[in-house]
Order: sequence, then C-alpha cells, then structure tokens
Amino acid sequence: MNELWSDCIRSLEPYTPGEQPSIAGLIKLNTNENPYPPSPAVLSALQSMINADLRLYPDPEGCALKQAIAEMYGLRQANIFLGNGSDEVLAHAFHALLKHERPILFPDVTYGFYPVYCALYGIEFETIPLDDEFQVHIMDYIRPNGGIVLANPNAPTGIALSRSQLRILLEKCPTSVVVIDEAYVDFGAESAVSLVNDFPNLLVIQTVSKSRALAGLRAGFAIGNSDLIDALNIVKDCFNSYPLDRLALAGAEAAICDLSYFNATRQQVVNSREWLTMQLMDIGFSVLPSKANFLFVMHKLQPAQEIQHQLRQRNILVRHFPKPRVSNFLRISVGTAEQCEMLVHALREIIVSDTSEVTC
Amino acid sequence: MNELWSDCIRSLEPYTPGEQPSIAGLIKLNTNENPYPPSPAVLSALQSMINADLRLYPDPEGCALKQAIAEMYGLRQANIFLGNGSDEVLAHAFHALLKHERPILFPDVTYGFYPVYCALYGIEFETIPLDDEFQVHIMDYIRPNGGIVLANPNAPTGIALSRSQLRILLEKCPTSVVVIDEAYVDFGAESAVSLVNDFPNLLVIQTVSKSRALAGLRAGFAIGNSDLIDALNIVKDCFNSYPLDRLALAGAEAAICDLSYFNATRQQVVNSREWLTMQLMDIGFSVLPSKANFLFVMHKLQPAQEIQHQLRQRNILVRHFPKPRVSNFLRISVGTAEQCEMLVHALREIIVSDTSEVTC
Repeated sequence: MNELWSDCIRSLEPYTPGEQPSIAGLIKLNTNENPYPPSPAVLSALQSMINADLRLYPDPEGCALKQAIAEMYGLRQANIFLGNGSDEVLAHAFHALLKHERPILFPDVTYGFYPVYCALYGIEFETIPLDDEFQVHIMDYIRPNGGIVLANPNAPTGIALSRSQLRILLEKCPTSVVVIDEAYVDFGAESAVSLVNDFPNLLVIQTVSKSRALAGLRAGFAIGNSDLIDALNIVKDCFNSYPLDRLALAGAEAAICDLSYFNATRQQVVNSREWLTMQLMDIGFSVLPSKANFLFVMHKLQPAQEIQHQLRQRNILVRHFPKPRVSNFLRISVGTAEQCEMLVHALREIIVSDTSEVTC
Repeated sequence: MNELWSDCIRSLEPYTPGEQPSIAGLIKLNTNENPYPPSPAVLSALQSMINADLRLYPDPEGCALKQAIAEMYGLRQANIFLGNGSDEVLAHAFHALLKHERPILFPDVTYGFYPVYCALYGIEFETIPLDDEFQVHIMDYIRPNGGIVLANPNAPTGIALSRSQLRILLEKCPTSVVVIDEAYVDFGAESAVSLVNDFPNLLVIQTVSKSRALAGLRAGFAIGNSDLIDALNIVKDCFNSYPLDRLALAGAEAAICDLSYFNATRQQVVNSREWLTMQLMDIGFSVLPSKANFLFVMHKLQPAQEIQHQLRQRNILVRHFPKPRVSNFLRISVGTAEQCEMLVHALREIIVSDTSEVTC
C-alpha cells in the first residue's frame, strides 16, 4: 500500500513525545509539565467561554492574546506570532526561515524535534558538539550557516546561556536567523526577548505549556522583528487559518495577565529544583546545573535505564533518551515539594538496594 | 529583510478566510458556521474539563475521540486520524499522500485552500472545469493523475455527488489516493465513509466545525484505510505531537456522541435552506442546488459585490469570491429561521430599490 504515500515522507522518523499514561496515582516527572495547576484566573476565563459562541470560528489573528504578550514585553502585536504550542511555532519557523543553501546549526544534544523538522522540510543541518560538561560554546556557531537554533535553557540538559553570550552571537551572525527556543526560560534563565528590537534576525519562541501550567491547552508564540513574523504568518495562513481555538486563546491570555500567580509558582519550582539537586547529589548523582524545570542526572554506579525501570515500578515516571552521549542520563521534571520528596525516598531505596547487590 | 526568509515561501499566497469581526448584532452568514449552539452535552463535557489537569499534555493519540468516531461509523481507531480542524487534516493529507510525479486533480471551482496546499508542499496540480451548471463529471477525472481531491458537497457551490458516482471513480482509479472533503456532508449529501472498507485508496475528511457547531474548538478528522492513516500520523508526528487540546478532544467527543441533537439541528438547517432557496428564487436569484449549509446564488440583474455591500450596510455578512466564473455569485450561509427571514427582508429592499433605480 505504501505506493500511495508521497515519496517525501517515506524516510521520516517522527519525534517521540514522553508517555502520557492515564493511570491514577502516577507521579509524572517525564514530560516537564508544571506540577502546579493553572492560575485560577485561567479557569475563570475558560468557564466564561463555555457558551453558544463556540459555534463561531476563533479570531484567526488572536489579537487579544497577541496584545497581552506584546504589552508584557513592551512590543507591538506585529512582533508576535501565535501557534498551537511552541512545537507548531518551531515547525513554521523551520519552514519559513531556516531553509537556505547552507546547513543550519544546532547542538548535538538538544531538543529531539529539531532534526525531525529538518527532515520534514528538507533542511540541511550540522550538529555542533556540546563540550564535555554539556555546555554550548557560542564561538562554535560563528561560521557560515543557514541559521542557528538554540534551546535556552538547553533540553534535556537544562544548562542556560547568558543574554550577553547571545548578544555576541547575534552581532557576529547578522545574516542568519537565530532562533532561541525559550520553552523553559522562565525558571531562571535570561530571556533574549529584550534583544528583539536590536536584532532583526532574532526569533524567540516561548510557550504557556511549562511556566504557565497550560500544556493541556496548546498555545505557543514567537517574538521577533515584524519581518520575521510576516514570514511565519504566510506559512501559517497556507496551512491552517485557526490553529488556536477560542478556549486556548482565552486561557493563554488570562495566564499571561496573571503575573503574580506566574511568579509565585515558578519560584516554587525553582526552590524545589534547588532542593532536589542537593538531595540527588547526596545520593551519588551527577546533576547538570539546570535553569529549567527539570534536572538531567547520571548516577555514578547504577545504569539510567535500570533506575528508570525501578522508579516505574514505584509509580514514578521519568524520561530516558536512548541516544549518543546521554544514554546513561535521566531527565527528571521538578514536581511539587511532596513529589520531590517521594522521588528522593524512592531513589534512596533503589540506589541502596542496587549498591548492596553490586557489592555482594 | 526578506533575505532571511526561506526561498520556498516567497511565492506563497495564503488562503483568505472569511471575515471574523467582533461587532455586536451582526448577522454572520459569511463563514458557514452553524446557526445553532453546540449540544448542551458538549458544554457540560467542557465544563468538567476546566480543572487542574489542564497543566498536563493532552492524549497525543486522542484515543477517546477516535473511538467515538470509529464506533459511529463501525470502524476501528486505526481508521481515524485527528487534526486541528479539517484544514490541518487536509494539509497533512496533501503532504503525506498527494505529492507524486503526476499532477493531482481537483475542480476549477472548489475550496480555495487546495491550490494553497499544493504551493506549500510543491505539489503539481491540474484543475478540471466544472460544467456550465457547476457540476462535477466523474469521468473527467479518470485519467493518469497523482491523486484526486473532491469536496462533496463542493464548496462554494453546495452541489453534491452521489455515493454511486464516487464508487465508480474509486473503481476506475485504484492507484490514486482519492480525498473526499466532506466538511458539509451532514446537511443532506451521501457520505463516502461506508466505502472505506472497500477502497484502500479512499480518504474521507470531516469536521465538527459545521454540522456539530464547533468551529470555535478546532477538531477535524480523516477516515480511511489504516495504511493511509499511518502516513498521516507520520507527518503529524513530525510536526506537532498534540494538535488537539484537552478541551477540543472532550468537546468533539461529546458532540459526536449526541446524535439526537446533531440530527435535530442539521434538519433545522436543511429546512431553512429549502425555505431560503424558494425565497431567493422568488426575488430573482439563481440558486445552485445545495446539499450544504450554504447557498451559492447569483442575481439576474444586480452585481454580487453591490448586493454584498448593501447587505453589509444592514449588518448582514455574506461571502464573495473575486475569482473566475464565480465573481458574480454570493455564498450565503444558512442561518436560523429568523436570520433567514431578516436576510430575505433585506434583500427584498435591496433588489427592489436597485431595480427601480435601474428602470428610472
């Protein structure tokens, strides 16, 4: 039957998202969701939209949400592009801005969707190795290229670049689109958004899925010079006029506007991350220095997959990537304080029992 | 700045959706929305989903919604593909199934998004002229091709093909993917879904935007042989893992399950369409025989754009397409009985006054 498929899709290998099992009582630390619920203001805004108007198409421009984002950053609606989660925004950015004669550049260890987008749109790419401490070195990217994509903080490492490093990159590469994927930026890294007015080649991508606890609603956005945004709008309007539904638009807007809830909950996540880092180091884990809502960790004695398996038996999900350089790491989302304690308790059982087995 | 854009997007001309103004009191007959609200069961289902779980990603497979659709049609989940409205489903179908060496075929007068998808994915196409009565002739499509796309009922004409005609087409073109876009099928045309088990090359696309009054939620679906569905899943999973949010999944499922409300409201739309057809003919309009929730009409004396303009002055929106063969037509969505009466009242004023001016 495959002869009915388009040739161009035969070699595609999709990105595999983390497991989303619907088993009660699971401690789900595998997909970097926020452990806290969305703001009460979001739930109220959604309630008010459950009415007969759902028969009508949403605003295809999403003006109210764009305006809320623009005001938050002191920019204009023309600087904002909306999509169905930051994955859709990334896909359109690859298509609209990153298909050039020269290969685009991104790290060898980063978000696994980037090479998938390249395959989908026929974009050449080169990966630049992180150093032995999994750090990005900006100077490695200053060479002829068709564009640069950096997750900041990087995934799955959690390690962040400073804004001044990004400024150097943008100054040195004025003819390349530089995409900074800031899905996790709100947990302690420096956003590049304030550089948008200085660098017409900068596109920053953010989401309400993580720091605003709305993974279930699907809203992401890009921030950049209006000329870059125009390109994204062309591709989007050739694909789907209304990727954000009425509820996602209203919920995301309410989330953007409730700054105090946003600040309180992200601080709680940061506090838990710091506590969890100390605990894991105490159990014998190497923990990369994370500015995200997850930790990327490796145990000195016990294989990652074995730990993952034993956590799963205790109803705790974490993520493992069977890929070069990171196959002995686990990515652990930061949960509530209570979930972090339960994780540490489980790990102490697992590591002690394993170490005793090893030494017997 | 355009040197930063990907070359492949420079020549794209996006589809222009109908206007979505937020002006109170408008009678909005320009985008084929359902004049009735979604089922009360949908609103209840949505209410029950406004909770802390919105922090979690949706089910990337959408199993519950797929199961509801599969049960409705006596098929399996493996026969169902979900997307963010039928436009996204169509986009993925063009990409995954319609890019071949030979050009694909669709009518010269049909949904304006089809040539846009072809441009987006670099797909060659040929348009087949409708006859002078705007009818599709199946035999025109039986020739070497890279795939066939037919809206049934066709848009913007509203004219439907019978299932037996589609069966002939499928029998004669076993090596072509035949996409039947059934966005409007529930208002009186014959669905091709019952042919899915007989024809592995048939892909039927439907939506909850029209007959289930959920344009605001963004859920569409394709129905076909599991091998075609596999191709769609590959492209989707290379683009966006979660295009339907938690609320859209729950709302669409509730809408599919409330058959009695669905049947009652679509019958009301059909009744209004038949009444409106008679009235418009009485005022001097030619009305194409519609099986959709809209009418495609031309007045014998008065130019379409002039009528559209005068209706707009009376707060009534209808759609005009400035395209070959149809530039003197208006597409009018079927409203509630009351809205249809107000439209007819307005048109009687407009046509009378215009005719009197003409004869003065």
